[in-house]
Amino acid sequence: MKLWEENIRRVVPYVPGDQPKGERLIKLNTNENPYPPAPGVARALAEMDTAQLRKYPDPGAFQLVRALAKRYGVGEDQVFVGVGSDDVLAMAFLTFFNSDKPVLFPDVTYSFYPVWASLFGIPYETPALDEDFFVRTGDYKKENGGVIFPNPNAPTGLYMPLDQVEEILRANRDVVVIVDEAYIDFAGPSALELISTYENLLVVQTFSKSRSMAGLRIGFAVGSPALIKALSDVKYSYNSYTMNLPSIVMGVEAVKDEAYFCETTKKIVATRERAKARLRELGFRFPDSRANFIFASHRWAPAQQLFEALKNEQIYVRYFHAPRLESSLRISIGTDEEMDALFHFLEEYLKGK
Amino acid sequence: MKLWEENIRRVVPYVPGDQPKGERLIKLNTNENPYPPAPGVARALAEMDTAQLRKYPDPGAFQLVRALAKRYGVGEDQVFVGVGSDDVLAMAFLTFFNSDKPVLFPDVTYSFYPVWASLFGIPYETPALDEDFFVRTGDYKKENGGVIFPNPNAPTGLYMPLDQVEEILRANRDVVVIVDEAYIDFAGPSALELISTYENLLVVQTFSKSRSMAGLRIGFAVGSPALIKALSDVKYSYNSYTMNLPSIVMGVEAVKDEAYFCETTKKIVATRERAKARLRELGFRFPDSRANFIFASHRWAPAQQLFEALKNEQIYVRYFHAPRLESSLRISIGTDEEMDALFHFLEEYLKGK
Repeated sequence: MKLWEENIRRVVPYVPGDQPKGERLIKLNTNENPYPPAPGVARALAEMDTAQLRKYPDPGAFQLVRALAKRYGVGEDQVFVGVGSDDVLAMAFLTFFNSDKPVLFPDVTYSFYPVWASLFGIPYETPALDEDFFVRTGDYKKENGGVIFPNPNAPTGLYMPLDQVEEILRANRDVVVIVDEAYIDFAGPSALELISTYENLLVVQTFSKSRSMAGLRIGFAVGSPALIKALSDVKYSYNSYTMNLPSIVMGVEAVKDEAYFCETTKKIVATRERAKARLRELGFRFPDSRANFIFASHRWAPAQQLFEALKNEQIYVRYFHAPRLESSLRISIGTDEEMDALFHFLEEYLKGK
Repeated sequence: MKLWEENIRRVVPYVPGDQPKGERLIKLNTNENPYPPAPGVARALAEMDTAQLRKYPDPGAFQLVRALAKRYGVGEDQVFVGVGSDDVLAMAFLTFFNSDKPVLFPDVTYSFYPVWASLFGIPYETPALDEDFFVRTGDYKKENGGVIFPNPNAPTGLYMPLDQVEEILRANRDVVVIVDEAYIDFAGPSALELISTYENLLVVQTFSKSRSMAGLRIGFAVGSPALIKALSDVKYSYNSYTMNLPSIVMGVEAVKDEAYFCETTKKIVATRERAKARLRELGFRFPDSRANFIFASHRWAPAQQLFEALKNEQIYVRYFHAPRLESSLRISIGTDEEMDALFHFLEEYLKGK
C-alpha cells in the first residue's frame, strides 16, 4: 500500500439491487412503481426550456416546497427537499444526531442507517425486533441521542399504527425523532398528523415509490419550522444547489395530480392484497406488508434457490445475504400481469420439486 | 432552548449569490455561462421517455462516465460523476482527507473548503496568497494531510501554469492532491495531462460553467483507478443514487458536441479580454483572470457602492464582505451586449461622481 492510500476512508459499500436491462424482463427487485409518473410530468418535460439550464437552479427549490406545503397542509417553512430521501435522511443524521448518547433504530431496518451513523461518528444501538418482526415500542423508552425508524419498516413491510408511533414520541421529548415513511402511501395514516403536536418530530417521504419518480431523485422532510431551518442551514453549509431544474419542474406536476396518485396507489394496494392470497396458496409466509413489496419465505424451498431460478426466467426479485433475512425474498409489487407471470412460474417450479 | 435543540449541529450557512428574476435584468453574479447548452441537449430532452422516470437511474451513471472517458482519453475506471462539483469535492474531502495532519489550501479560495473540512472534522491550514493573489508553491512543501486548490483560483481567476502544479505534486507524493478546475476551459492546459504520472492526483471539473449546465448539477473527477474506486466506494456507502436520469441523458449530449463547446468557450474568452481592456480604461484594476469572471477593484470608487448602484440598475455582480475581498467586485462574463450595458452604466456613473 502506498502512503497516500493509508488515509483513504475504509467503507463497506452498499450494493444496490441489480438494474438489469432487456425487453422481456420482469423487474420486482427495487420497489419501483410499475406505473409511469402522472401525465402532467410528461407535459412539463415537453415544455421545459433547455436554455434555462445554463442558470443555477433555485437553491431552495421553492416551487416544489410550495407545492408540497399546499398538498400536505403545512407552512412553506415546514418542508425541506433533497436529492432522494437518502439525501434528506443523511442530512438529518448530520443535523440532529450530535449527542454522545446512542441513536436508536431497529436491528432489522433500512440498511443505510448504520452506514450514515458510522460515517458521521454517531453512536447507535439497534434494539431487536420481536420474533414476528414487529418493533417493540418499549425498547425506545431509554435514554438516547435520537430515534429513527421506517414506517412501514424495511424489508418487512410492517406498519406501526399511529398510537404506537405516538407512544414512542411521548417517551422522547428531548431528542429528535425521525419517522422514515418511504412506503406510507401504501400503508395507513402518516405521522404527518402528529407534527403540530411534536415539534421534535421529522417525517421523511419520497417521490420514488408512490409518485413513480425514482429516476428523478426527490425526497422531502416535513416538521416544525425549527427542525426545517436547522436542516436547511446544514444543507446550505455543505452544498447549496442539489436539486436540479428538471426535478423541481417535474416534481411539482407529480404533486399536483392527486387523482392519478390515488388511482395508481390504490391499484398497487389491490395487487398486493391479491398477491398475498396467491403467495399463501403457493406455500409462502410473510409479515403482513403494507408497503409495495412482500417479504416472503417459502415453507420448504430455500430463498436463494428460488431467487436464482427466477433470475434464470428473467424475473428479478431481491435477496439479502444477512442474518434473519436470508430465508426470504423481497418481492416488489408490479402490474397484475407481471405478478401473474411470477405466480405462474412459481407454481410450475414448486410443482416440479 | 429546548433539550432536543441542544444537539442540533451549529453551522454558518453559505449564502449563494442572488437568483433575482425579471425580464430586463443582467445577471453577472454567479459565473453562469451566457449561452444555452449544446443543441443536442434540447433534442435529448424532447426524446426523453418520462415513463422511464419510474425506475431508479443507473447508480454508476455509466453512459455519462463513458462519454467523459472518451472525451478526455482516459479509462472508464478513471472517471467519477456527482451532483455538481460541490458534491464531488465534498465526497473527495470525506474519502481522501483522513489524516491527523492538516490539509493545505490557500487563504483566499473557494469558500466551501473550510466548510467541508469543519463538517468532517478535518484539520487544515491556509497558507496566504502573495500580495498579488498568487499561490506561493513553496507553502505546499511542508508535511500535510492532503492538498487542494482551484486552478484558476476563486475569486481571483488567476491561473497557475502546469509546471507549478507539477512542482506541488512532486513535493506531495504521499498524500492526495486535488486540483479543482471549475474554470479550466477558459484558462489553459488542464492538470489532466499529469494524471498518468501522478496516481495521487485527482482533477475535478464541472458542467456548470463551460458546458452551460448549472441547472443540471453535474460535476466529475478524473484520476487513477485507485482514487476513483475509493471515491465510488464512499459514495455508494452513503447514497447510491444521486445523479438523476435527465442529468445523465442530457449530460452525455453536452459532452459529445465538441464544436459547440469550443465555439462558446472561445466567445467567452474573447469577451473577457475585451472586458479587461474596457475595465482598465474605466479605472479598474484586477488580477489577470483566466476564468469566466473578473475580480476587479476601482481606483477610487468603493466596491460596495458600485455593487449597490449596479443592483439599482438591475445589473447583478457579486460582492464579498470578507477580508482581502471587500474592495473588489466579481463580475461574471456575459454576452457582449450584457457587458456593453455594464460598461455604459459604469462610464456614466463614474463620470457623475
